[in-house]
Amino acid sequence: MTPNPTRRREASRRAVLTAAFDLVQEVGYAKLTIEGIAARAGVGKQTIYRWWPSKGVVLFDAFLMLSESGDGGPVVLPDTGDLRADLILVLRATVEELNDPRYDQPMRALATEITHDAELAAAYREHLDEPMREAKRERLRSAQRAGQLAPGLDLDIAVDLIWGPVLNRWLQRTGPLTADYAERVVTAALDGLRPRS
Amino acid sequence: MTPNPTRRREASRRAVLTAAFDLVQEVGYAKLTIEGIAARAGVGKQTIYRWWPSKGVVLFDAFLMLSESGDGGPVVLPDTGDLRADLILVLRATVEELNDPRYDQPMRALATEITHDAELAAAYREHLDEPMREAKRERLRSAQRAGQLAPGLDLDIAVDLIWGPVLNRWLQRTGPLTADYAERVVTAALDGLRPRS
Repeated sequence: MTPNPTRRREASRRAVLTAAFDLVQEVGYAKLTIEGIAARAGVGKQTIYRWWPSKGVVLFDAFLMLSESGDGGPVVLPDTGDLRADLILVLRATVEELNDPRYDQPMRALATEITHDAELAAAYREHLDEPMREAKRERLRSAQRAGQLAPGLDLDIAVDLIWGPVLNRWLQRTGPLTADYAERVVTAALDGLRPRS
Repeated sequence: MTPNPTRRREASRRAVLTAAFDLVQEVGYAKLTIEGIAARAGVGKQTIYRWWPSKGVVLFDAFLMLSESGDGGPVVLPDTGDLRADLILVLRATVEELNDPRYDQPMRALATEITHDAELAAAYREHLDEPMREAKRERLRSAQRAGQLAPGLDLDIAVDLIWGPVLNRWLQRTGPLTADYAERVVTAALDGLRPRS
């Protein structure tokens, strides 16, 4: 039986993306090359260049593949009715992922590619950030319906207020990124900096 | 009269730093080279290598020189007694600076070097971030004394909540960075996401 060419292409694509993800952990983004990825994936350099314009885009697609490797349904955040507890749970998981040595190099590489490449940033926003952001907004909408959030609140500002400090501390290394920090950020964002009487 | 060697060294140092800052705006960080900086500054390549281990550190020192070019006194944030108005003023100025094409490339370059280089990040934190952060904390301390902020508030969390979203939106390009956005972030951080009765 001749192997299905679509399947063969898909297998090569996955081999390239897995190789890129593994390799960037080992050598760092600066030393990641298309040649290195091709050797690791067991494909020709030209196969990669045919599908991807740059190593940044290969890495981006590797993240996309990882994000799609679940059951394919949309991401949903926990909703126990206790907004503070749910947000702390999620933000602590984010902190753990950002501190995980397996993800550290690839995620920093993707973040810096986005910083310098507006086109890749737009693709990132559409395919990776926006589905996650919608899940975050949806959890906040549910809290808003339950009267736990200010009625006129801009949910995008709310998402930025909760997740922005953690991402920024991670990227700019301005302090230790701990579970305790995640919890304090959630509390401060929900309560606000002004005193509550 | 023989020129003072200390002065001559200082003039070369400034020429190198100015050249690095100008050049990164023109060619971007990826194409910035020690050779290019040397040519622009009119010094030998070896002069640069004698003082700086990498182009990232040259650029960092260029920012340090800029931050020291005022009157030498510590940075102080405006304090009119109206915390919200003062924070909006400062955060809008930050947004303008981040949107300024003269600073865009150099600042993105510095930010991504910090993302990948823990040692440079530590130097950045000590010499550039911490003096600014202390000025921010000092403004918040004054508000706390006036009863405008929760008494037990962790001021570093407060700084991260106000400035983190803006820096993150800029670096990750997750949306337009406008004066209006700055204002909404300040309001949300001060009031909190939970309703105030």
